[in-house]
Amino acid sequence: MIALQRSPEKIRLPRGFAFSALAAGIKVSGRPDLALVDAIGGANAAALFTTNRVVAAPVEVGRAALQASHGRVRAVLVNSGNANCATGRAGIQACQRICREAGALLGVTASEIFTSSTGIIGVRLPAGKITVKLPELLAQRATSESAVLSFANAIMTTDTRPKIASVRFRTVSKDGTKEVTTLGIAKGAGMIHPQMATMLVYLFTDVEATSRELQPLLRGACDESLNCMSIDGDTSTNDTLLLLASGASGARLKDAGTRQKFSTALAAICQSLAEQIISDGEGVQHVIRLLVEQARSREEALLVARTIAHSMLVKTAWAGADPNWGRILAAVGRSGAPINPSRVNIFIGRQQVCRKGIGSAFDEARAHRDLAEPVCDVRVQLGRGSHSVRFLTTDLTAEYVRINAEYST
Amino acid sequence: MIALQRSPEKIRLPRGFAFSALAAGIKVSGRPDLALVDAIGGANAAALFTTNRVVAAPVEVGRAALQASHGRVRAVLVNSGNANCATGRAGIQACQRICREAGALLGVTASEIFTSSTGIIGVRLPAGKITVKLPELLAQRATSESAVLSFANAIMTTDTRPKIASVRFRTVSKDGTKEVTTLGIAKGAGMIHPQMATMLVYLFTDVEATSRELQPLLRGACDESLNCMSIDGDTSTNDTLLLLASGASGARLKDAGTRQKFSTALAAICQSLAEQIISDGEGVQHVIRLLVEQARSREEALLVARTIAHSMLVKTAWAGADPNWGRILAAVGRSGAPINPSRVNIFIGRQQVCRKGIGSAFDEARAHRDLAEPVCDVRVQLGRGSHSVRFLTTDLTAEYVRINAEYST
Repeated sequence: MIALQRSPEKIRLPRGFAFSALAAGIKVSGRPDLALVDAIGGANAAALFTTNRVVAAPVEVGRAALQASHGRVRAVLVNSGNANCATGRAGIQACQRICREAGALLGVTASEIFTSSTGIIGVRLPAGKITVKLPELLAQRATSESAVLSFANAIMTTDTRPKIASVRFRTVSKDGTKEVTTLGIAKGAGMIHPQMATMLVYLFTDVEATSRELQPLLRGACDESLNCMSIDGDTSTNDTLLLLASGASGARLKDAGTRQKFSTALAAICQSLAEQIISDGEGVQHVIRLLVEQARSREEALLVARTIAHSMLVKTAWAGADPNWGRILAAVGRSGAPINPSRVNIFIGRQQVCRKGIGSAFDEARAHRDLAEPVCDVRVQLGRGSHSVRFLTTDLTAEYVRINAEYST
Repeated sequence: MIALQRSPEKIRLPRGFAFSALAAGIKVSGRPDLALVDAIGGANAAALFTTNRVVAAPVEVGRAALQASHGRVRAVLVNSGNANCATGRAGIQACQRICREAGALLGVTASEIFTSSTGIIGVRLPAGKITVKLPELLAQRATSESAVLSFANAIMTTDTRPKIASVRFRTVSKDGTKEVTTLGIAKGAGMIHPQMATMLVYLFTDVEATSRELQPLLRGACDESLNCMSIDGDTSTNDTLLLLASGASGARLKDAGTRQKFSTALAAICQSLAEQIISDGEGVQHVIRLLVEQARSREEALLVARTIAHSMLVKTAWAGADPNWGRILAAVGRSGAPINPSRVNIFIGRQQVCRKGIGSAFDEARAHRDLAEPVCDVRVQLGRGSHSVRFLTTDLTAEYVRINAEYST
């Protein structure tokens, strides 16, 4: 029904968006570091931002701009190589200047330009390097797969590959059959080098929808996917998730059938991007698909999943493909959820390794082999209720430490 | 006034306690793994246990025994090499059997025998190996420095050195001058290999006090020291802190002067043991003395300190002696405390590196050198109030991951 496209497979392009990217000299390496999406006829936006109390200038400016423009966005400008965070008033002004100059070139107000930054923290953003490149960036924009790939490449920092997913579906209403395309592009959030890095996710669709209609759908899709993963438990100061709807397909989100299919498409794209992000985490050898079941509430399941996913002892055991269920049980026990250990079951791969809080006989060599796979399922049953959560996480490797311990200031 | 003795300096012995240890064959290595303290005339006890919901059998049995005996303890038996955790009903029975047989040999009820276990999780404790050695263990008990050292060595698992601290003070009351001695012995809680390990702390004093008088003092001393440190944020299922008072000095805790000096002694011992534990963490290169100031409450300061101390990005930066204050600021921001970033100051060593949420000019080479020292101070000011907390933590090294990732099941 809905075909999920993962990069580097075919990229499906939503109507109403043009992409471009170039090197503006923010990255020392000279690699592409400035990317643009032009929502040619404008778009309605929904957005979610980092929950960190320390927020970067573009998050502050972007949040205010969306309010001022009532969710209208004409263009998105992303720079990599500099997070423009902990840069004070100068950082805000740099961001505002970029919005002002891009707006002038496109004939819209500054509040219709949305920016993101990712890279080093605490270093002043050289706004001039960006503004001087705007005419060239605008001249290059194109509606092609290669332009999307250029965009996805230019927003990367420590990512080793671009992260793209797209879905196209047909929907029938009284106006006839329409085709709706949704495209997602992401970067990060890895085991992050050399500074705190960032998860940036941009979703583009040609469905017709208001910002108010889009916001709860975005929240729902994010809660099930991008908010259910963790590499190292650190939250960036720049995390941004932006959804833009051009309306160019003519299919309206108001139609129940379209709404249903769009929700499914959005969920599939966010899940694919989450998987692409997690498997590209620096130093990651093993991705763990954690399933916490039989919780009293979804929040309780999440609390337990996060405690397991952030336990250094559990993560290092996974690095060694060690089926050390005692560490998982101990993490469950300190999670804060009022569990009864004698009701807890733990499974690694398809085998039960702990039954009612006590080790059960299992094939250790097989459990070791399962954990040595690139992806392994770990299932924890709490015996308290009927709520569950799927959570993507990773092992903690010596390579992660080496990368993040390099003296980089 | 009060001289703090750190191992391997002179050990001061409180009256009323005899120590012994031997190898019972629980550790595969054949090293000493069974230790005894005999409170010859009995002692009044105060105790604190792990907050983990998953608790080992000896914690469950010990808690019940202290209730049954109204806080009276005749002897403490500790085995290393096996945690007797996640062992179900058989684990409880093994523990009860040991208490019963030791009680019979000493002529007291089983509830006056207190046991601890530390080592591998989920493996049945061979109680017979312990009970068969009890007569020999009792025959060897002695009131000497070397007996204390034997005890401290036998409770070790991944520790590389015994952890001992003692304080002696004089106190004058209407009964004349008395000398009160307090001795602390600890193990763990390191970067823990090969299974979840444990912090065990035993405090022995000859002051005269009831369990009810001792409990709040123990809680206070622990909150300021052992509860203000973290290596990897994992909480063992066996953590135990036990204080025994023999009363043999004749000095009573009821006397205000004695009480004051005893509190100071207890705090000093707990702090010394905390420092000894943290600096012996496996893979630890650098100990960080974290000071969080200007919080609205002590709880808020602790919340921020724990978030910094558990951040993998912060800890890996410390491993590289990297004065990466952006990661510290970002950890403060996601701690859950409603901080305003523009009021946050951060200091590394004696230098301010972040002023009001923005990087301030500092000598990076010097900050790098400071962080490369075995111990370095990191100070964070929140600009919200007048509460503060001192918190001991460590870096996260590739060595930690290597040790904990070894396939050990």
